[in-house]
Amino acid sequence: MGTEILSIKDKSLFLWNDSLKINDYIIANYYVETSLDPEFTAIAIAMEQSATTTLLKGFKKFNLSDSTARVISVEVMGESEEIILPQYRLKTAVYTGNYKDKGFYNCLIKIAFPIANFERSLTNLWNAVGGEITRMGFINTTRIIDIDFPENYLENFKGPLYGIKGIRDRFKIEKRPIFVRSTRPAVGLKTKEMVEIARRVLRGGFDGVKDDELTVDNSISSFKERVKKMVDMIKRVEDDTGEKKFYIANIIDDPIKTLKLAEIAVKAGVDGLLIAPAIQGLGMVREISKLTGLPVLSHNSWVEFLTRHPKFGVKENVWLKIQRISGADMIMLPGNFATEFIDRELEIECLSACFSKLGKIFPSFPVLAGGKTPEGLRDYLKRIGSGDFILIAATAVDSHPDGIEEGARRFREAWKEMEKGK
Amino acid sequence: MGTEILSIKDKSLFLWNDSLKINDYIIANYYVETSLDPEFTAIAIAMEQSATTTLLKGFKKFNLSDSTARVISVEVMGESEEIILPQYRLKTAVYTGNYKDKGFYNCLIKIAFPIANFERSLTNLWNAVGGEITRMGFINTTRIIDIDFPENYLENFKGPLYGIKGIRDRFKIEKRPIFVRSTRPAVGLKTKEMVEIARRVLRGGFDGVKDDELTVDNSISSFKERVKKMVDMIKRVEDDTGEKKFYIANIIDDPIKTLKLAEIAVKAGVDGLLIAPAIQGLGMVREISKLTGLPVLSHNSWVEFLTRHPKFGVKENVWLKIQRISGADMIMLPGNFATEFIDRELEIECLSACFSKLGKIFPSFPVLAGGKTPEGLRDYLKRIGSGDFILIAATAVDSHPDGIEEGARRFREAWKEMEKGK
Repeated sequence: MGTEILSIKDKSLFLWNDSLKINDYIIANYYVETSLDPEFTAIAIAMEQSATTTLLKGFKKFNLSDSTARVISVEVMGESEEIILPQYRLKTAVYTGNYKDKGFYNCLIKIAFPIANFERSLTNLWNAVGGEITRMGFINTTRIIDIDFPENYLENFKGPLYGIKGIRDRFKIEKRPIFVRSTRPAVGLKTKEMVEIARRVLRGGFDGVKDDELTVDNSISSFKERVKKMVDMIKRVEDDTGEKKFYIANIIDDPIKTLKLAEIAVKAGVDGLLIAPAIQGLGMVREISKLTGLPVLSHNSWVEFLTRHPKFGVKENVWLKIQRISGADMIMLPGNFATEFIDRELEIECLSACFSKLGKIFPSFPVLAGGKTPEGLRDYLKRIGSGDFILIAATAVDSHPDGIEEGARRFREAWKEMEKGK
Repeated sequence: MGTEILSIKDKSLFLWNDSLKINDYIIANYYVETSLDPEFTAIAIAMEQSATTTLLKGFKKFNLSDSTARVISVEVMGESEEIILPQYRLKTAVYTGNYKDKGFYNCLIKIAFPIANFERSLTNLWNAVGGEITRMGFINTTRIIDIDFPENYLENFKGPLYGIKGIRDRFKIEKRPIFVRSTRPAVGLKTKEMVEIARRVLRGGFDGVKDDELTVDNSISSFKERVKKMVDMIKRVEDDTGEKKFYIANIIDDPIKTLKLAEIAVKAGVDGLLIAPAIQGLGMVREISKLTGLPVLSHNSWVEFLTRHPKFGVKENVWLKIQRISGADMIMLPGNFATEFIDRELEIECLSACFSKLGKIFPSFPVLAGGKTPEGLRDYLKRIGSGDFILIAATAVDSHPDGIEEGARRFREAWKEMEKGK
């Protein structure tokens, strides 16, 4: 087929114009490397991620103007030669633009997506902004670096049921960071062992315990028995210590099973639930939060496959923002957060995704994990700007020479010492 | 803390030995680039993706030997210097090995994961083999290049309800490829327009139509009305043409909504359902297939973010195999399949994932899409080795100078001409 037939018609349908209402759209910001003309690439993305086709012979003109994604801006930042994704060409309209002789244009592209195309569905929103972009053979890489939502759209989302203030009220912890340990060993423990390990850590002064994301419902430790015994233990430790304690249960599983586990967990009286949206679907946190009324922790399983490549996938703050909108009261931060290896700018963007004003949606608790120590508390506090974070610690607790109860106590003491030393 | 405390203890728990039963494990094969000693890296992966910790002071030795992931082999293929993922180091045991002075070891690593850690849950299986591997700061990149399942484990999975033979019986199509068009324009159409477009394409000789993955349940076209009218139209065209026709409805949405849409679709009498597992969760195809008894098409939304980078993520055939096990009767092939830009070896691996013996699990129909033409049929046939494929075509249908009915007819004619010309 000739280029004429294949070329993009009705380009104006895919370009922003000022007669459109900005509140009817969300705006996705992409970093894109492309071997095609940058403006053509942007239109191709808008087209493939909305109408795809606009005209059909033998049909009256369709009324698509409220449904097409629209390019707002294209900024060429530079050029590059390194191939990141294997290139290919297909015989469709979007491949008919002018190709660069060699290498790629590096661009920032802003595209507006009509809310009508996904309405209140986060799954469909995610499909609209990303679904098949990396299936376009001329794209060398793309990274979603931000998504802007109009306030009226955010009103469709309850967001975190509790947020930072609500979690603090519920868990009765003022100002300071919240200390949590994940079940370790994460697999193979009998329920009795898990309960005893958790009990000691809580007695030492930790506020909560959570199932590891790999601690499943299996024949070694059935979920039903586990949640019951953990909740019983929590009550006993609360009586012993006079402090509120909490337990977050892992309900990561196939969808119907997750709904069943959630029901069991609610009946048992757990304090929160663990979900892994990157493998359970973008909509799961919201559904579970709505169904159970419990705080939800959004775990990072498979998330770094999307976020860790600096030019590919989804920028960390975008993932965090989507988690917050979906209703995660607590969200795992990137693995390099609060280390010397992360750019301060990215740390700030991550915190902003959790804390900044986002319609009426509550802020989410950022969750720090991975080799965190009592000695590091001053640094974490400085980076985060307040005690509004959850710290999941295992290594430093578990390796304390006097045992895990002392290991846990050391975190609380270190915090007190730091406060006094201020 | 000193290295002694942090270093990996009980290494033997994370190494394969011949007293273990191979049928109690699945085996994941990784390509890994790492700045740490290769064997140490492999043990670190096995450890982080199973027990994490093995010993706790003040506790008797835990019985973890049936629950730990086990390194089967580590093969160093070479070295590289290019940084793919930003590196970082944390203060946990897995970071305590010997680092390479500069650059990375490129390795093939085989790890056995105990079935006990996820049992029949595909979501938890996926979490076990991939969950936090890219959260390890010394890993420069990793790609899951294969997963082997013992036959006894596969018996937990029904797989595709119909498979190739079942789909052919159901859709009454012998031997030849199955021709399908997706709704285009994909957004903004009224139901009436969709129905009329689909009707013409089916009259032209296409076997089926499907909703586009972006065609949602919204105020422009409600799902309930759409599926009813599409099914009515299918019946009329069947009466007119004397050929069986089919309609696949898009139920991609947030989880509870997807279950509701599935119910509506079943009641309306649709012929199949469209699911996007990469954004809806790995378990969704299986649940929907079980709940509805309908054929399921596994769509590629967001899949290329996982599969297209040649050294990062998940190899295409692994994704296809997981889809087949999860019950997808039809699975989208990679975007560069059947082009001059794909390695033949990868094509064969993709086909093998769909067709090869896999316990008692039926083969899945591979789905070719993206700029496919009538003229290309001979090439597709040659590459796939038989007519056992579904071809989704839009551009070549839509751009036919005599309209879409003729555009569709051209595919059937081209197939007949090709058969005669054999």
